[in-house]
Amino acid sequence: MRNTSPSSPAARPAEGVDRLWGTSVGEDTAFLLARANAITLAAASAAVGEFGLKVRSYSVLALAVSGERPNQRELSEFLRLDPSQIVALIDELEKRGLVRREPDAGDRRVNVVVATDEGREVYARAREATERAEAQCFSALDVEDRDRLKTILRTLAAAPGASAG
Amino acid sequence: MRNTSPSSPAARPAEGVDRLWGTSVGEDTAFLLARANAITLAAASAAVGEFGLKVRSYSVLALAVSGERPNQRELSEFLRLDPSQIVALIDELEKRGLVRREPDAGDRRVNVVVATDEGREVYARAREATERAEAQCFSALDVEDRDRLKTILRTLAAAPGASAG
Repeated sequence: MRNTSPSSPAARPAEGVDRLWGTSVGEDTAFLLARANAITLAAASAAVGEFGLKVRSYSVLALAVSGERPNQRELSEFLRLDPSQIVALIDELEKRGLVRREPDAGDRRVNVVVATDEGREVYARAREATERAEAQCFSALDVEDRDRLKTILRTLAAAPGASAG
Repeated sequence: MRNTSPSSPAARPAEGVDRLWGTSVGEDTAFLLARANAITLAAASAAVGEFGLKVRSYSVLALAVSGERPNQRELSEFLRLDPSQIVALIDELEKRGLVRREPDAGDRRVNVVVATDEGREVYARAREATERAEAQCFSALDVEDRDRLKTILRTLAAAPGASAG
């Protein structure tokens, strides 16, 4: 375990800013999560930016492509964004011809969001780019650790209270 | 592995918004990291908020308490915040009497940040609160998975390129 420490003398000398990895902050899982999130978010932003998307609009597009026909409330809840933010993201994607709103078959007062053919195509290419970016971000991990990380994060997401805050 | 899935039928029926966990978005590690970060950040904010701190000022205070005598450039680099943000955070903590700037013994043109006695005391209590909040956030994980998560995140943080973006 010690050898994987970022402040391990073998990897980097514990001088300069690296010595701060030995403090309580460097041992704090919440801090480490924030750090990992910042790294992957920057990489994903750059990847989807090539397609004129932001990470948030990419997520909405991916859910529109999924075939699950999410409505605006569901998108808001799943992506933890305000309904007004979701409306703005859908508007933006609709204007570009990547998604369209359709009445829900079960309740025609409710609109669901579905991808257009062009939306599917842009998504497929953006997804390839995000997968490359993600592979780069996680290249320090072996396959087992990548799978374990995903499993642990899914457990956290499913935990009671995970939707709070 | 399947049983830990958030959309596992045993845990929740895959209807309503939960069916979206079966999409590519719900399988995306970067998305799951963002979700976990949002949950722990909200919990940590609430915990340190009781002491008049924000997560960022708490991190600066923790590093001031560590005894490592970080200077402003090191705080900026380690916490990935702009130097101007770091200056504002130190100013705020100094005004409250929790930290003070001292000339670095090695280079007296450079100031380092150290905690006052009161800063140590506030930090100790805020740390207890964040540890309780963190324990709550990670209560869905067994001890082995918590350790594994931390180890994986430290590996990511130490990876070449982790400071980019």
